Amino acid sequence: MAPDFSFVIDAREGDARVGKLTTAHGAIETPAFMPVATYGAVRGVSAEELRAAGAQILLANTYHLEERPGSEVIAGQAGLHGFTGWRGPWLTDSGGYQVTSLAGRSRLDEDGVTFESSLDGRRQRLTPETAIQIQERLGSDIAMVLDECRPNGSDAAASAGLRAAAERTLRWAERSARARRRGDQAVFGIVQGGTDSAVRRANARGLAALGFEGYAHGGLGLGEEPVQRVDLVAATNEVLPAAAPRYLMGIGYPPDLVDAIAAGIDLFDCVIPTRHARHGVLFTREGVLKLRNARFKQDAAPPDPGCDCATCAQHSRAYIHHLLRVNDTLGARLASIHNLRFYFRLLEEVRAAIHAGTFGALREKVRLVPVR
Amino acid sequence: MAPDFSFVIDAREGDARVGKLTTAHGAIETPAFMPVATYGAVRGVSAEELRAAGAQILLANTYHLEERPGSEVIAGQAGLHGFTGWRGPWLTDSGGYQVTSLAGRSRLDEDGVTFESSLDGRRQRLTPETAIQIQERLGSDIAMVLDECRPNGSDAAASAGLRAAAERTLRWAERSARARRRGDQAVFGIVQGGTDSAVRRANARGLAALGFEGYAHGGLGLGEEPVQRVDLVAATNEVLPAAAPRYLMGIGYPPDLVDAIAAGIDLFDCVIPTRHARHGVLFTREGVLKLRNARFKQDAAPPDPGCDCATCAQHSRAYIHHLLRVNDTLGARLASIHNLRFYFRLLEEVRAAIHAGTFGALREKVRLVPVR
Repeated sequence: MAPDFSFVIDAREGDARVGKLTTAHGAIETPAFMPVATYGAVRGVSAEELRAAGAQILLANTYHLEERPGSEVIAGQAGLHGFTGWRGPWLTDSGGYQVTSLAGRSRLDEDGVTFESSLDGRRQRLTPETAIQIQERLGSDIAMVLDECRPNGSDAAASAGLRAAAERTLRWAERSARARRRGDQAVFGIVQGGTDSAVRRANARGLAALGFEGYAHGGLGLGEEPVQRVDLVAATNEVLPAAAPRYLMGIGYPPDLVDAIAAGIDLFDCVIPTRHARHGVLFTREGVLKLRNARFKQDAAPPDPGCDCATCAQHSRAYIHHLLRVNDTLGARLASIHNLRFYFRLLEEVRAAIHAGTFGALREKVRLVPVR
Repeated sequence: MAPDFSFVIDAREGDARVGKLTTAHGAIETPAFMPVATYGAVRGVSAEELRAAGAQILLANTYHLEERPGSEVIAGQAGLHGFTGWRGPWLTDSGGYQVTSLAGRSRLDEDGVTFESSLDGRRQRLTPETAIQIQERLGSDIAMVLDECRPNGSDAAASAGLRAAAERTLRWAERSARARRRGDQAVFGIVQGGTDSAVRRANARGLAALGFEGYAHGGLGLGEEPVQRVDLVAATNEVLPAAAPRYLMGIGYPPDLVDAIAAGIDLFDCVIPTRHARHGVLFTREGVLKLRNARFKQDAAPPDPGCDCATCAQHSRAYIHHLLRVNDTLGARLASIHNLRFYFRLLEEVRAAIHAGTFGALREKVRLVPVR
């Protein structure tokens, strides 16, 4: 369906794998991390800065972009690649996650979901078909099917709800596959089923039968224990097509990433590096620095002395502390560049380690670093 | 007193002049515009972006920097040049303007002024001597004397108050001159006297007798008519040393700049380009664009098709409109880069025009462009 799209696995270590994902707008070395650019930009950070830090692909959001500025506007400017400053690959999330994150403002039925805008009360209707159509107008390289993403719960009613949501997600995936028109856009299916491994595996088998270009694990990072999440991912990956890319949605901290890579994940997205940066929390290999803390007021060291990012090359902890304290947005920007570089560099090291057969040791090292 | 400092006038057209101001951290071609970096950064914009746009010197604020992070902290990081990302020339304003701008939180006496912090109620005392000492710790290339800046008024009491403020500013200037210790920092005196030309001229003569490296026109842009301001500046310049640089503080729109240059001004600072940018107001040679306006939602043109800035080279009005609407700070940043480049380019053209003897015609053209 998408002849521009391919995925080649170059090396393996256990279930971990290094590969190359080729899209209509460029190739991505996997495992890869996708910065979140909800509205078509990573808050405060330019495309050149993202590229210099090592970004390969960005993630934008269908629901939010349809609300502002609208997919018609973006289509009129040659899609996301023409509208924004990022000319490389784009992945668009479908809006299914907003069923959970905007729970009070969404109403779901078998045909689709209706959102009420928090801006002006305007209603927005998403169905499996319109979600694909919007993403085709946005022109992303990888589109996601509309899924029903529900918060996890442990009682019987929650279980039944999660099973029903997974079944509906599968019916929606089938409709999504039929709705596709663009030959230059890959579409990924999304596995749901909460924390019930059997439901997730059944869901994955159903999606695999539909033949998407890739598969995502959805509905995780919503309260389950990290250990349980890794088990669910591993069990589900067993029944997904081994040759297709696998994407763990919305996860996570560096230890979560290496654990998921060990279970066979190829793609990630997460707001953590950029959101933490805006709050002044910077990642280093020794743990996080909370740069708003008064103890950094006179600290002339770079945020992470071992880091090769543009921020660490030029600025001290004291200066970023000061910018954060006086609410100059340059502070959040410098911190975002560092945190993204930290994530990209981690994945560069992961890829090199899998090639070298040393990923197991790297994983143990990364897991020891405190993230709070 | 400051052997690293010099000012050479290269060309004149009427009272307008082109010159070169040399400081301990680099030379500045005048007439020049100084972006406002109150807390040591131009909000959201990096030093590299400022340099690429054509910035030559930045302005920071003594009062605000002493409040956060404190001049001792900055001194401990090799001054403003070491603490911030900007290694070129710095000018520091003295805090005298805050006597007006923070009127409700400042109390003035013959010895100095006491401010009460809006952050924590802490008191900060500025005297002519401490203002110089703080600026010496900040390490700026050009320091400003502490002045008494008062709002203009037309009644007799206001007049008497402005005369008294000008006289006190002169007494303070004398104390400032005696307090200087650094040989690598120039100090500029500040003319006060409101809209009374005779008072301003007397004040200027008194300052000139003290022998500063440069002279500033203070207390303007506070309600007087632009035409009156130009007359005051011209009348005062007649009695200031012709060989010293002249700085018009806090002014203004492009037409205000060319009018002041025609009256012999060499240096400007103003928040207008950056503050307007943050509100989505962009300067062009045809007038301002209010990019938050709905009519720009689908406008694929660059903000100013004739502009050579990094923003206009890469982004559409529609994209900046969108970023401003979704409150992504990248929008304010891209707009700030454009507006600063607009100001720097205007001054590049002014300098070339004075060399060529065509400044009069350029001035008339710039004066015709609407600024609101």
